[in-house]
Amino acid sequence: MHIHHIAIAVKDLDESLAFYRDALGITVGERKEVLAEGVEIAFLPMGETELELLRPLDPENSIGRFLEKRGEGIHHICVAVEDIEAAVAKLEAAGARMAAEIRSHPDGTRYAFVHPKSSHGVLMELYQKPPEA
Amino acid sequence: MHIHHIAIAVKDLDESLAFYRDALGITVGERKEVLAEGVEIAFLPMGETELELLRPLDPENSIGRFLEKRGEGIHHICVAVEDIEAAVAKLEAAGARMAAEIRSHPDGTRYAFVHPKSSHGVLMELYQKPPEA
Repeated sequence: MHIHHIAIAVKDLDESLAFYRDALGITVGERKEVLAEGVEIAFLPMGETELELLRPLDPENSIGRFLEKRGEGIHHICVAVEDIEAAVAKLEAAGARMAAEIRSHPDGTRYAFVHPKSSHGVLMELYQKPPEA
Repeated sequence: MHIHHIAIAVKDLDESLAFYRDALGITVGERKEVLAEGVEIAFLPMGETELELLRPLDPENSIGRFLEKRGEGIHHICVAVEDIEAAVAKLEAAGARMAAEIRSHPDGTRYAFVHPKSSHGVLMELYQKPPEA
């Protein structure tokens, strides 16, 4: 297991990159709109983890509402697991509550979210990469 | 640069470990009281990053006040840098505000904190490991 990414909700990507890229010096790997998730994302790889800066495309979606309620900051962390079915089964057997059940991205990545009530205040994504082609 | 650790403020280490260690399956590397920082910490290494669960030893210290005000959750993330003097100088030249200037731990580690106003809502520690003996 390792930390796959740390997602940070921001209001403006250019202003955020002025800090993370220009002042802190992290290289931007990619920047794109992900319409299915309603966000524009700047991906900043840092070793085996990456920072993801998320700007909501719609103030009414989950990232938009997070910003409205909490302001900018860490939205979730994502843990890469080998077997997401087994990980979720083990969590649920231990009484943990999921915020979102297992779903798939178009590339075959599978993901789920643990409810912060169970993970002590941390919205935690679990992520299993697709099998190698 | 890489993410050195993610620090999570918690009320009770045993309850938190029931989730992070027992249900999620992360191995605990070490658990100790760090009196100089007023916390008991469980260190959970995950590849090149680690999760640190922080329990305040005093409800009036900074972690205790964070818990009182915000509840459990991510307190800060720490970025390992090669040259902390250069990193802080570059941040300050770009107009970023530090929450704490550069200090040293007894082991020679040097660290500083960027104010969340500058890092878009993320309390960010910078960390430079001591020179190899």
